[in-house]
Amino acid sequence: MSAPKPLYFEDSLYLLDQRKIPAEENYIEIRTYQECHQAIKEMVVRGAPCIGYTGLYGLYLGVRDLDSVSFKNVMEIAEFLISSRPTAVNLSYEINQCLKQLQELETKDSWADFCLEFANRRLLEGHESNLKLSAFGAKAMVEKVGKEKLNILTHCNTGYLACGGIGTALGVIEEVFKLGKLENVWVDETRPYNQGSRLTVFELQKLGIPHTLVTDSCCAHLMSLGRVDAIVVGADRVALNGDTANKLGTQTLSVVAKEYKVPFYVAAPFSSIDLECKSGKEIEIELREGKELTHHQNLLISGATSTYNPSFDVSLGEHIDGVITERGVFFPKEPSFSIKIQEGGNDNV
Amino acid sequence: MSAPKPLYFEDSLYLLDQRKIPAEENYIEIRTYQECHQAIKEMVVRGAPCIGYTGLYGLYLGVRDLDSVSFKNVMEIAEFLISSRPTAVNLSYEINQCLKQLQELETKDSWADFCLEFANRRLLEGHESNLKLSAFGAKAMVEKVGKEKLNILTHCNTGYLACGGIGTALGVIEEVFKLGKLENVWVDETRPYNQGSRLTVFELQKLGIPHTLVTDSCCAHLMSLGRVDAIVVGADRVALNGDTANKLGTQTLSVVAKEYKVPFYVAAPFSSIDLECKSGKEIEIELREGKELTHHQNLLISGATSTYNPSFDVSLGEHIDGVITERGVFFPKEPSFSIKIQEGGNDNV
Repeated sequence: MSAPKPLYFEDSLYLLDQRKIPAEENYIEIRTYQECHQAIKEMVVRGAPCIGYTGLYGLYLGVRDLDSVSFKNVMEIAEFLISSRPTAVNLSYEINQCLKQLQELETKDSWADFCLEFANRRLLEGHESNLKLSAFGAKAMVEKVGKEKLNILTHCNTGYLACGGIGTALGVIEEVFKLGKLENVWVDETRPYNQGSRLTVFELQKLGIPHTLVTDSCCAHLMSLGRVDAIVVGADRVALNGDTANKLGTQTLSVVAKEYKVPFYVAAPFSSIDLECKSGKEIEIELREGKELTHHQNLLISGATSTYNPSFDVSLGEHIDGVITERGVFFPKEPSFSIKIQEGGNDNV
Repeated sequence: MSAPKPLYFEDSLYLLDQRKIPAEENYIEIRTYQECHQAIKEMVVRGAPCIGYTGLYGLYLGVRDLDSVSFKNVMEIAEFLISSRPTAVNLSYEINQCLKQLQELETKDSWADFCLEFANRRLLEGHESNLKLSAFGAKAMVEKVGKEKLNILTHCNTGYLACGGIGTALGVIEEVFKLGKLENVWVDETRPYNQGSRLTVFELQKLGIPHTLVTDSCCAHLMSLGRVDAIVVGADRVALNGDTANKLGTQTLSVVAKEYKVPFYVAAPFSSIDLECKSGKEIEIELREGKELTHHQNLLISGATSTYNPSFDVSLGEHIDGVITERGVFFPKEPSFSIKIQEGGNDNV
């Protein structure tokens, strides 16, 4: 078994249609930047890093097909691509980085080639960064737990479908597996969008990693029985005091882990640490539509007319045993945490 | 708006088909005890008390239609009805109670009439018991919280659809509403069977009680923001030390409530307290089929081949602020708890 790529490029861009998983496993061929915009908008592809890479390949497709290469024309393509998911920070970040470097080139003839090289390079760098992060995380977790085999619980989807590389939290889990130290992964559903039951289960199946699906609400039951040795989740944003915004439900896990003294880790690229953000109190919570709660596809589950569906919540730094990054593991419970992350860490943190 | 009855008797027994809620609101006419067996088996009706009442009306239908009334014939009907849900304790309890009293009657001619009277009486007694419990609970909760208006969170389904009467935890909430003390009910989905999103939302809508649907995993987020003033849930079984078995997810709520100092109540008939059970450790956890996690109706959600789906979990007595019954409220955090419940309580506990 092996992991299918969420995206790859061969003359066209091919995107694994994540909306159809697990019922279908189909690639959609993207020939133009307009098709790329549409695919991002319709969530064929998801996960912040993958959306960024998709945008870069879209930029290449657009620039390649230009009759007249000018910065104005390239900017129009870039803006159209960014408008497909205006709140996806990675998308605008990657495209803007590419544009910045592109302007420094001597001739416009090489712009298209540069875009393709840039996309390929960023995808590779992301993968290498995931590998480093995963090695740091697996080592820290195995040492902390000190058992022959670990039962690890994870939430939401943080593997190759989201990241292109081996992933963050799920990369750590894969690394523990490769070390021969994994007993079982508890995958929670991650309601209401079912990233756990739909996507993480799919990823682990493809990797041949043993796992068991449970409800989000099962966590206290499992931990009280000693059936969870560690928890690792991803992060949308980490504040200077370690407070972490991540998919709704992470905060509940962090509180229950504290009660049962289960080590609780966050795994994310170092760039997810927001040095401008002092604490989780500054993080605004986005709301998503209630239909995610009241319907499954188009089937009615609930007649509720009032719903509250925040996209993420904030776990306190004091409840987090380690923030795992490609630059090492940082410890929010230690007073030196904010200094160390401001220094940027190194591979031997 | 008013609450539709989950069952009523008018020559035939009429059962609200709970499998179809909220998409449809239909009553099924039950003319014979065989049809009654089938309806219980297929979960047209659910909730321990309602299953018990349905069985009693089924017994009446069977005895009424007997050509030759003998205890042997009545026993056959009773056994067939009980076999529709062998693990439903209320079903066998109610039917056996009826049989016991029926045997003491002077003439067999009145057996059928007695069965109908018994069913009607038990349904009425259940309702009166719910009313008492709800009044005790609402008073205790309003006093404990000490705010003008309460935001109350509940889990699973404990209202009239399950109980026939106004319900246990949901009865308490209705009583708080009638006192003019309710701001909003947070209804969690109660995965995987969605009793919260499907049934509790339906009940509250019919009663005109303000409510908002959230995921099960939203609890820490809500509590950390001070948006939950109290939690009240039902119980399958309460042990002598207050440990409480209830729908999966209750334990997680109890732990998170402890962290955020949110009063946490259990509401259940006094008969749910098992005086033979010293602590939650003695309670065996039943497992349900994984399909509840991997499918919605027949739509595939997850390709998981390994699932763990316990039907309930156990909350510790030391995390419970009050056990609300029709005989008063008992306090597991107090050393006298086990003595008071063994004494059976009274209306002025």
